[in-house]
Amino acid sequence: MSVDEVRRARAYLLRVAEPPAPALVAFVAQHGPVAAAVRVRRADCPTEVLKATEARREYDLVAQDFERAAVAGARLVVPEDDEWPAWPLLSLDLAAQRGVAEAVPPLALWVGGDVPLGTAADRAVAVVGARASTNYGEHYAAELSYGLATRGVPVFSGAAYGIDGVAHRGALAASGVTVAVLGCAVDAGYPAGHVGLLARIARSGGAVVSEYPPGTPPARHRFLVRNRLIAALTEGTLVVEAGRRSGARNTASTAGALGKVVMALPGPVSSGMSVGCHELIREARATLVSTVDEILESVGRFGVAEAGAQTRPKRPTDRLGPEALRAYEALAVRADRSDAEIAAESGVPLRRVRALLPELEIDGFAVRGEAGWRRRRQSA
Amino acid sequence: MSVDEVRRARAYLLRVAEPPAPALVAFVAQHGPVAAAVRVRRADCPTEVLKATEARREYDLVAQDFERAAVAGARLVVPEDDEWPAWPLLSLDLAAQRGVAEAVPPLALWVGGDVPLGTAADRAVAVVGARASTNYGEHYAAELSYGLATRGVPVFSGAAYGIDGVAHRGALAASGVTVAVLGCAVDAGYPAGHVGLLARIARSGGAVVSEYPPGTPPARHRFLVRNRLIAALTEGTLVVEAGRRSGARNTASTAGALGKVVMALPGPVSSGMSVGCHELIREARATLVSTVDEILESVGRFGVAEAGAQTRPKRPTDRLGPEALRAYEALAVRADRSDAEIAAESGVPLRRVRALLPELEIDGFAVRGEAGWRRRRQSA
Repeated sequence: MSVDEVRRARAYLLRVAEPPAPALVAFVAQHGPVAAAVRVRRADCPTEVLKATEARREYDLVAQDFERAAVAGARLVVPEDDEWPAWPLLSLDLAAQRGVAEAVPPLALWVGGDVPLGTAADRAVAVVGARASTNYGEHYAAELSYGLATRGVPVFSGAAYGIDGVAHRGALAASGVTVAVLGCAVDAGYPAGHVGLLARIARSGGAVVSEYPPGTPPARHRFLVRNRLIAALTEGTLVVEAGRRSGARNTASTAGALGKVVMALPGPVSSGMSVGCHELIREARATLVSTVDEILESVGRFGVAEAGAQTRPKRPTDRLGPEALRAYEALAVRADRSDAEIAAESGVPLRRVRALLPELEIDGFAVRGEAGWRRRRQSA
Repeated sequence: MSVDEVRRARAYLLRVAEPPAPALVAFVAQHGPVAAAVRVRRADCPTEVLKATEARREYDLVAQDFERAAVAGARLVVPEDDEWPAWPLLSLDLAAQRGVAEAVPPLALWVGGDVPLGTAADRAVAVVGARASTNYGEHYAAELSYGLATRGVPVFSGAAYGIDGVAHRGALAASGVTVAVLGCAVDAGYPAGHVGLLARIARSGGAVVSEYPPGTPPARHRFLVRNRLIAALTEGTLVVEAGRRSGARNTASTAGALGKVVMALPGPVSSGMSVGCHELIREARATLVSTVDEILESVGRFGVAEAGAQTRPKRPTDRLGPEALRAYEALAVRADRSDAEIAAESGVPLRRVRALLPELEIDGFAVRGEAGWRRRRQSA
């Protein structure tokens, strides 16, 4: 049974039932994707699976799905792939065993962007929040996402207007890994104002992820279903701003149900956009965080990172001294910076910057350009 | 043995050792105040008590203390008095049994103001915070204290500049009970800028409280020792604003050690005066509160109020309907207000205000004045 056969079977299964389809997922787990797909096509399956797949059973759009995905620069990542984020998604299986209804693992994921999905979902943090964000929330969403990305933490979000978009942009500004998980297909062109942002995420070492087949339009219920993936693929979810009823709170409560860390940024009591954050802290025992260090402490302390931290590969920059790290962080990927600019940006004295840059070059962190120095991208 | 004899003995004991004096307190508990005072005077007591009382043993300033207190309008309240707040102070004994070093009950308290101390310390809340407060903190200290007082909750604080002073004033503005617990004598005239405020608290149905004999000047260690009384006399402590190192945080941590509710108001992450509040929420598991209802819910849920709530006398205003209560709250105690002013202040339509005011008069809540209506003070 070839991986391509498995991939085609899973593409069919992703389309045949609207996620989350717990009966179908269980059926696939029992029989394997290829046999399950054959039996679903023949209507040779239990009543619950039959019911979930009835409407779309006879669709055979697999070839077309792969074509459309290829046009959009996306591939299908399946659990049989090395890059499948098995460890983070295990939280869904464990929660399902505890009776959490919405904890259904995805059958596969459509992914745009070169980063291996498992790498992107390694010790990642979700930064989410209201669409109707304020300057306050946007400021901190950008600052915290930038800081997380700078520290090598991938930032996941939902690509919505407001906090989500700012979170992605903050990580991009730090040349970090950011992942947009969508409530529609990767080629749905939604939200319209973020089509450019999504393209930039995919080609900047990040990823755009969806369990919906190419062409699937956005829908309200799909955002809620999608939220479980944001929660599951990360170690913790930070809600930056949220009103009293907010999708971000749904992601946070799912994260809590999955045993992930739930964090919220406090804000002025007078701001309606901090009400949801305060409620999460007050009533859902979300951890109050104000800084990147507090976020890292929270996910390290309660999340899965600490247990596995010793055995996991470290970031390449872990071996840099504090001044070298600051100088490295002051480099840009796409523009040359002068010694003086790097000194100003990093706060490291110019004399030290001039000594450090050649060392960074030797170690593969910096590249000499025409107008100064730029950062050399690190492979994960 | 007369109460006056007991009172004189305790006045002597309050002066003979700097509070908290755990050995002396234990000695008094064992022998009673009169015998204990006699034996301390004779130096006929255990080494620890001797050490604590050595320097001041031969002072006999009892008569003078009562004279000076009388001039300042203060009396000595002793555990043998009916008004002694025995129930809230029990938290100190219980914490001492659990090994909390600072949990030493006071031997007696000098009190200015007519309210029985036990009444003032019945289901009270402490509202404390930084001296270097911001407009944000002052706004909420005033608003929350006003709201608590309006709901019949006495507001305790430390009479310091900044949040403390605003908290007292907020409660006064609602004609509520507010209590200032000092780190110096009630007649020390400290802080200088709050002498008028302290006088107003004492003559407006509140109290000014200290365990320091008349004439005792303020001192840094006395504020810390005083903080345990603020924590002990209330069901919960709300920190409105606090820097990284703040006396308010000391009160909060003492409240926590005494098993009381610790609450903190969130604020903008950018404000250094909210840092201490956020740390309390994040690290000391203080409850985040934004509204009066949340404060009441917190002290009711975790405090001692709920157990006894059914059997305690209700506030007289409990029987007012919502519009009548709002109209009542819009009345001032010391100034007449017109129907129109009350309507504007309360948000109750003018026609309803005109119907409600005579009803409030009949029920003893409002008094007709020359220029309108004023509130009739309710006896506790």
